Amino acid sequence: MPGSQRVVIVGGGFGGLACARALDGADAGVTLLDRHNYHLFTPLLYQVATALLDPSDIAFPLRRAFRKSPNVRFRQATVTGVDLDARTVRTHAGDEIGYDTLVFATGGTNNYFGNEPLAEHSIGMKTLPEAMRLRNHVLSCLEEAEQTRDTDEKQSGARIVLVEGLDRLLGAFHPKLGRYAEETLRRFGIEVRTQALVEKADDASVTLRSGEIIHAKTIVWSAGVRPSDPLNGAPRARSKRLEADEFLRLRGRDDVFVIGDAASVATPRGELPMLSPPAMQEGRYVARAIKTGRSTKPFHYLDKGTMATIGRHAAVADVRGVKLKGSLGWLAWLFVHIYYLIGFRNRVAVLASWGWNYFLRDRPIRLIVRGDPDPLADEIDQG
Amino acid sequence: MPGSQRVVIVGGGFGGLACARALDGADAGVTLLDRHNYHLFTPLLYQVATALLDPSDIAFPLRRAFRKSPNVRFRQATVTGVDLDARTVRTHAGDEIGYDTLVFATGGTNNYFGNEPLAEHSIGMKTLPEAMRLRNHVLSCLEEAEQTRDTDEKQSGARIVLVEGLDRLLGAFHPKLGRYAEETLRRFGIEVRTQALVEKADDASVTLRSGEIIHAKTIVWSAGVRPSDPLNGAPRARSKRLEADEFLRLRGRDDVFVIGDAASVATPRGELPMLSPPAMQEGRYVARAIKTGRSTKPFHYLDKGTMATIGRHAAVADVRGVKLKGSLGWLAWLFVHIYYLIGFRNRVAVLASWGWNYFLRDRPIRLIVRGDPDPLADEIDQG
Repeated sequence: MPGSQRVVIVGGGFGGLACARALDGADAGVTLLDRHNYHLFTPLLYQVATALLDPSDIAFPLRRAFRKSPNVRFRQATVTGVDLDARTVRTHAGDEIGYDTLVFATGGTNNYFGNEPLAEHSIGMKTLPEAMRLRNHVLSCLEEAEQTRDTDEKQSGARIVLVEGLDRLLGAFHPKLGRYAEETLRRFGIEVRTQALVEKADDASVTLRSGEIIHAKTIVWSAGVRPSDPLNGAPRARSKRLEADEFLRLRGRDDVFVIGDAASVATPRGELPMLSPPAMQEGRYVARAIKTGRSTKPFHYLDKGTMATIGRHAAVADVRGVKLKGSLGWLAWLFVHIYYLIGFRNRVAVLASWGWNYFLRDRPIRLIVRGDPDPLADEIDQG
Repeated sequence: MPGSQRVVIVGGGFGGLACARALDGADAGVTLLDRHNYHLFTPLLYQVATALLDPSDIAFPLRRAFRKSPNVRFRQATVTGVDLDARTVRTHAGDEIGYDTLVFATGGTNNYFGNEPLAEHSIGMKTLPEAMRLRNHVLSCLEEAEQTRDTDEKQSGARIVLVEGLDRLLGAFHPKLGRYAEETLRRFGIEVRTQALVEKADDASVTLRSGEIIHAKTIVWSAGVRPSDPLNGAPRARSKRLEADEFLRLRGRDDVFVIGDAASVATPRGELPMLSPPAMQEGRYVARAIKTGRSTKPFHYLDKGTMATIGRHAAVADVRGVKLKGSLGWLAWLFVHIYYLIGFRNRVAVLASWGWNYFLRDRPIRLIVRGDPDPLADEIDQG
C-alpha cells in the first residue's frame, strides 16, 4: 500500500468516513475498519423502521466509497482490542494490524443507563437490524390486531405514548420549539409524558418510576447513546467517552486520535453532543492534522445548527439563532438530509420514496421479512 | 363480509393471487391466507441474492393489493390443517375459518429428493430470507477472501461450478437452446457439469455420486420444487402434488380446487410444470368457475412459451415454436418480467436498478445485513 505512514481508522460512521474521505489521495496508507460493510445514515433509520425506506436507501457500501481510492482500503472487521504501546489493532479474526497513527471513531450504542434488562424487552434504534426488527414487529402486531378484530369484532387502534425524562421534549432546542413539538405530537394523537422515567419493562408493559404501568406490546428505546469501544484503561470523561485533548488526540497519546460519539471533546459550553455534525468536522480536522504532520490550531466546532422532524409539514430547526418550525422547518430538514446522504443512487431513491409517500400517503415497504442469520456474518458482526 | 358464498384461498403466490384478483368484485366473500404478508415475484429472486435488487422490489404487500376491494380480505396466517368434511381451515393461531369453497394454492418448497441433510449445508432459492442469506453469505466470503489476501498475499478469485443431473442444461427447452446456455456460461468462466448427481455435502464441499469432491464454501440448491401443503390423506400424483380433475377440483371433492405447484394437472403431454404461467391461468379459471357456479369446459392450459435468462445480452426463449436467444431473447425476457411484475412502484424500481447495473456494471445492494429475528413473526412464519 502506498503512503509513508500507516493510518488505521476504526469505525465507518460519520466521523470515520469523513476522515477517510479527507485522506483520499494523501501520502498515507489508510485502512478503514468497520464491523459492517456499509456506512449507515442513521438520521433516516426511523424511516426504515416505519416502512418508508429500504435498508439499502440509507446504507452505503464502504468498499464502494473507496473503490477509486489508491490509498484507502476498507476491511470488514470487528476490533476486539488495541495495544497502544505495540501500536496494533486486534480483530475478531485474530489478525493484528499495525499502525503509525490510529483514529478511533467507534461511535455509540443504545444507552440503558445501567438498566440493561430494559434491552431485552425493547427495540433499540441504532442499527439496520434493529430498524428492520421494529418494522417486522409493528407490522406483525397490526396483523395480529386484525385477526383479533375478525374474531371478537373489536375495533383495534394503535395507542402511542412518548415517555421523556426531562420536563420538555427536544431539550437541546429552544423551549419554544420543544413546546411546538409537543403540541404537534398531541395533535397527531400521540400521548406525551414528560418528567417520566422508566423503571422496568416486560413484554406487555412499561412501569414508570411513579408506579404507573403503561401497557404496550411494542417498546422502542431511544433514550440516548453511550460510547462503545474496546479501549481498556484509557482516560474517560464522566460520560464514559474517551477523553480528547484540544487537538482531538486521546489524552496522553500523540499517535491516537478520538472522534465522534466515542470521544469527549470539551468546549466552554460542555462536551460536544453525540451528533453527526461534530463527528464529521472532527474527522476532517484529524485528516488535516495527519496530512500536515502536526496540528497547530486546536479543534474548533462550528455549530451550523440543529434540526429535528416531527411529521408531515412539521419540523423544528435552530440555525445560528434563527428558529424555524412548521413547513419551512420541514423543508429545511428534507433538504439537509438529502444533501448529507451519501451516494447519488441513495439520494434519488430516498427522494422518490418521499414523493411517493407525500402524494399517495402510502408506505411501500410494508414487508414482514424474518431474518435468516448467516453464521459467517454473525462471526464478524459480533460487536 | 358481502357475498353469498365464503371462498377461502390458501396461498398468495401466482395462482392464489390471480384467483383472488379475478374474484375482486364478485358475489363472494373471499379470504386470502398466506404465511407471509406479501406476494413474492420469485422469477427475480436470484437478483436479490446477487445484490442487484432490493427485497421490496419483488415483494408486494398482499394487504395493499386488495385495499380497495370490497369483498377480498387478506389474513397473514399459516394453515396447519384442513377439515374437508367440516369445511374448515385451521391456522397457526388455532383459529378455524369456515368455507363454502376452498382454493388450495400452497405452492412448493425446495426439493432435496429425499436427501434432507443437503438442506443443512446449502442455501435454497425459494424465499426472501433465503435470497438475503445467500447475498450476505457470498459478500461475507468475499470479505474473508480479501482479508486472506491481505495476510498471505494470495490472489483469490471465485470459482463457480454448475452441477446438473440431466445430460444437458434447460431440459424444458429445445436442445439447441440448452447447448447455447452451456456455451454462454462457459464463456463467462463457469464450469458446467452435466449428468452429475449430488450425493452429499458439508460446509466446505459437495460430493458427487461419481465420488468426485468439489470444494465450495457456498452451496446453492435449486434442483427443483416439491409441493408443500398440509392436506393429509388427499389423493396425490406420483409427483406428490394433489391430484386435480379436469375442472381443477381436488379429485373427489366438489368444493375444493387445487392450483399451481401444489396441484397435479394432467395433460396429454404429462403433468403441467411447476411454473407461474400455469398457476396464473389455473387461478383465473377457478375464479371463473366460482363466479359462474359451475364449470362446463375442462381447464385448458395455453402455453405462451418459456424463457430463461443467462446473463448480459444472453437469454433463451421458446415462444410457440419461435426460438430466441442472445440479445433478442434477453430483451424479451426483460420485457416479460417487467410486464408481469406487480405494482407500479416495483416496476419502476426494478427498471431503474437494471439500468443502473447495465450502464455502471454495479450491483448497488452490496449489504451484509444480519437478520434480527422477531419472535412474533417467527410464530406466524413457521411453514
